[in-house]
Order: sequence, then C-alpha cells, then structure tokens
Amino acid sequence: MNDGAPFGTIAIVGLGLIGGSIGLAVQQALPAVRLTGFDADPDVRCRAQTRTLVHQVTGTLELAIRDADLVILCVPVRAMGDIAAQMAGVLKPEAIISDAGSSKAFVADAIRAALPHQPLVPAHPVAGTERSGPEAGFAGLFRNRWCIITPPDGTDPEHVSAVSALWHALGARVEIMDAAHHDLVLAVTSHVPHLIAYTIVGTASDLEEVTRNEVITYSAGGFRDFTRIAASDPTMWRDVFLSNKHAVLDILQRFSEDLTALQRAIRWDDGDALHAHFAKTRGIRRSIIDEGQDDARPDFGRADHSA
Amino acid sequence: MNDGAPFGTIAIVGLGLIGGSIGLAVQQALPAVRLTGFDADPDVRCRAQTRTLVHQVTGTLELAIRDADLVILCVPVRAMGDIAAQMAGVLKPEAIISDAGSSKAFVADAIRAALPHQPLVPAHPVAGTERSGPEAGFAGLFRNRWCIITPPDGTDPEHVSAVSALWHALGARVEIMDAAHHDLVLAVTSHVPHLIAYTIVGTASDLEEVTRNEVITYSAGGFRDFTRIAASDPTMWRDVFLSNKHAVLDILQRFSEDLTALQRAIRWDDGDALHAHFAKTRGIRRSIIDEGQDDARPDFGRADHSA
Repeated sequence: MNDGAPFGTIAIVGLGLIGGSIGLAVQQALPAVRLTGFDADPDVRCRAQTRTLVHQVTGTLELAIRDADLVILCVPVRAMGDIAAQMAGVLKPEAIISDAGSSKAFVADAIRAALPHQPLVPAHPVAGTERSGPEAGFAGLFRNRWCIITPPDGTDPEHVSAVSALWHALGARVEIMDAAHHDLVLAVTSHVPHLIAYTIVGTASDLEEVTRNEVITYSAGGFRDFTRIAASDPTMWRDVFLSNKHAVLDILQRFSEDLTALQRAIRWDDGDALHAHFAKTRGIRRSIIDEGQDDARPDFGRADHSA
Repeated sequence: MNDGAPFGTIAIVGLGLIGGSIGLAVQQALPAVRLTGFDADPDVRCRAQTRTLVHQVTGTLELAIRDADLVILCVPVRAMGDIAAQMAGVLKPEAIISDAGSSKAFVADAIRAALPHQPLVPAHPVAGTERSGPEAGFAGLFRNRWCIITPPDGTDPEHVSAVSALWHALGARVEIMDAAHHDLVLAVTSHVPHLIAYTIVGTASDLEEVTRNEVITYSAGGFRDFTRIAASDPTMWRDVFLSNKHAVLDILQRFSEDLTALQRAIRWDDGDALHAHFAKTRGIRRSIIDEGQDDARPDFGRADHSA
C-alpha cells in the first residue's frame, strides 16, 4: 500500500476495452500502483504492451498474478471460471479477486468454485462503448459512470472498501448491491436492450424487398441508434445472455407482451392507447439527462446539429 | 423565382421541429425567398415569430398560403387531409403542395382527395431529433441527411426538380422513390425502431422489482440509447404508426420471429447461434459510419470519452 492507493500491485487479466481502460485509468489516477497484465491471446499481449495499457504485460498468467494484491478479471463472463482455476495455488493468500463482468451471480459462483478460500469482491463498471480490443480503451471510460459492487455474504468489509476506493479513484460512482438484484436491474437497463438491438439490426439486414444499402442510407430515422450497441463484442454478449438467462428471459417475456399490446393498438386504430404510452416514456429521458447519464444535446452531440 | 431559388414565396404550415428547421435553413441558404408560416396553435405562432422561424407568421392559414408558390405541410400526418381541405379555393392554381411527413402513401392520398387538381410533390426529410416544438428547430438539421421525394404517377418533372432543388439548397441529399417502397423502407429504418424503443422504455418503467430510479441510474449500459428516440413527439408518432400500419405490422411480425429465435437460443444454451447472429450485425454499423449517417466516435461523441 502506498500514497493512499488501496493496492500496491494490481494484475489485470484480459486486456480488451475494459481491462485496457482500467489500466490506463489506474496509471493516470494512481501512479504509484504497480500494474501487471495478461491476455490469453499473444497478439493482444503485444498490442497491449505497445499501448502500455499496464506497466508490464507478462507472457504467462502466473507471472502477472503471483505478486498481485488485487486481480481484476476482465474476460468474457463464461471464461472466468477457467481463469480462476488456473490461478489456484499461484496467488498470494490475501490477494483479492475482483472482475468487471456484466452478470454477477454466475461469475461469483464460478470464481468461488475454483478459489473457495480467496477473498472475492465482484464488481461491474456500467460503462462501455461498441468497440473492443486493446486499442479501444481510454482512461476516461469510467468517469461519472457507476460501478456496482456485489460482495457475497460474509465478505470482509475492508476488502469491499478497498475495491470501492479503487473505483472512486478512477472517477466512478460506487453502489453496493445484491448480485441477484444487480442481474435483474442490468437485464433491463443493458442486456435486453442489447438483445433487441441485435435482433432488429438482423431483421433489417434479412429483408427481401429492402436492400441493405437502403437500410444503411436511411438509418438516420432511428435505426442507427440501435446499430451502435449491436456492434458490441459478440463473445462478451453471448456470455452475458447465457450467464444471466433467468432475468433476461423474464424481462424479454414482459417486453414481448408490451410490444404485442402496442401492435394490437396499431392494428385496431387505437390512437389513444398509443398516445398515452408514448407520452409516458418521454419523462424517463429527461430524468436520465438530469442524472448525468446522457447528453442533453439533440442526438447526444453528434456532428451537424448546430448552425 | 429569383436568385436561382426555385420558389419566390414558400409557406410553411406547422411550425414545430421540422417546419421551424426548414424556415431557418431557407433563410440561411436562400435569403431571397419570402417565407410565410402558420400554426393552428396561437402559442406556437407567437413563439415561432419570436424566433423568426419564417419572415411572417400569419394569424390565419389563408394569409400564409394565398401568395405561396410552394406550401410545405409540416403537421402530424393524419392532420394533413384536414389542412389540405382548408386550403381548397385559396391557393394559387399553380402552387405546389409538398410536405415533410414520415409516411408517404397515406399522405398523398389524403392531400389528393382534398386538392385533386393541385400540383403535389410529397417529400420526407429523414432527419430529426427527440425534441419538438418551435424552439427545437435549427438550420443545420438537414445537412448531409437524405430527403426522399415520392411523386405520384403523372407528376410534372419540373415540379419534382424544383422541390429537389430546394432540398439540395438546404444541404440534403435527394432520392426519388415510389411511395409504397418508401413506406416499407422507413418502417424498417425508423418506424419499428421507434416502436421498439417506446416499448422497452415502458417495460422498464413498469417493473415491480426494479425501481424507476435504478433504471435511470444504470441506463448507461445500453438503455439510454433507446430513451432518446422514445422521447420523440407522441402525436407525430401515433400518426406515423396508424398511417403506415401495413408495413409496420409486417416488419414487427418479422422482428418478433427473430427475437423469439434468439430467446430460444438463450433458453437452450445455443451459444453458437447467438455468436453467429451478433457477429453479423457488427458489419452494418461500420457501413452506416462509412456512409456518413453516423459518428464513428464511441458513443457518437458524447461527453466523457477522451482523456
């Protein structure tokens, strides 16, 4: 421990958008922390070293983690159990394991099964972009975003405080939540929206009577907002849906019922029902802007608005 | 006609986001054109005059249109037939009627029924923001966006050229299209995406176990992208869905089938099917950016990305 930093050495496993952004943000906010990193892909390791996402990219997982006080797993959620199993016997006994996964109950169970006695403080920074890979990260990704920490029952409060302090230092706001509740909240605010976006972009590209070129050309009418999140990393999102299956299917069922009700209102010319629904959703947008989670400028400040 | 402008006097009926933006853009690009405007709402008329959205906001529809060479209807699509009926007998015989509606077959039929002998050149500028009202417009709204013109059979080509020249002058790219095909293309690229966004925002706000505050707080995970278009004008969108019912219901049916297939893949742990679908949709995003219809910066250039 040094200079008020909660950890002396942090190891980041998985050097894509999130792992790379954590590395860059730690170097900026906590320059005294020593940062090591590993990625299973040799090409990613090389590119991560070129960008200095961490001080030292190691050739093996063991070299990255053996001196770490904190190990942050930034790999697709269904890969975390295997990685954790490979760390058994190498870690310092007091090293805290954390992660950045988007589904929390599944990840905690997987890591706990592989490392039953290691301190565990799962976390989920609710931030990202549609880009992936070691070139995608940037130090400001977590600034003014939320990081949800989901400590299992019995977690040492000092471990939770240390991980919270790290995220605060990176500019994030921190919330402590039960893992199951996190998974339901994120199913609504992130997982199902991604699935819907992936779906409509696929539907649009499969039409016989409308060319893909027409879809692309006229996308400014609304469609393009969906294509951004439908460009997110396929492996990461496959794992999110499969690891948070119960909550995702529950919210999807509700969504389908609601969509069917609006579809029926269109078919039967029920303009009043449509108008009432559309007027209600407007207020939520205003609240999101007030809370600082989006940009109030039309189109979020895309080019070509003013003047 | 003057200074190369395709029309001497243009009347804009409906002074919200689109009508107001047309007024501001014409003043900037074609300063010799005389602009009149009317809105059925006296309060909107007052605010439009304050912003000088047109040179002269008139107290009656008749005063706005009687000297016009071109009348552009910028009202909700199901209001256009009534407005057109009120214009009968007032217009100059050679005045061209155009509009900015989002569904084209319905609007053409409604205007044609009310004004059977008036030249008619329907148009749809594919541009907008989630804001509405006379304060929402800006001159740059149409720059680098597409305007689709859907002339009925037998339209004088010179009338089409004149309306095309106007939109070119406002910075738009112009495409000529059959009205029915327009309605199908826009159902995919605009209408169904809006309905889906309205639906998921409503679903999220109705959950018993997740508070509205949690939905808002953690919206950066994907949900916030949907709230922007779900904040669009309720009356305008009610009319769009009811006036383009056939195409919207057709695309919705396909969307529901595709969503059910992904839902089933999640339920049965078919990771390969999910990954294959998600990888396919990524390429469409790249094409939209290449075509200049969106911003390549992560999050479209929202604040808090760099550094």
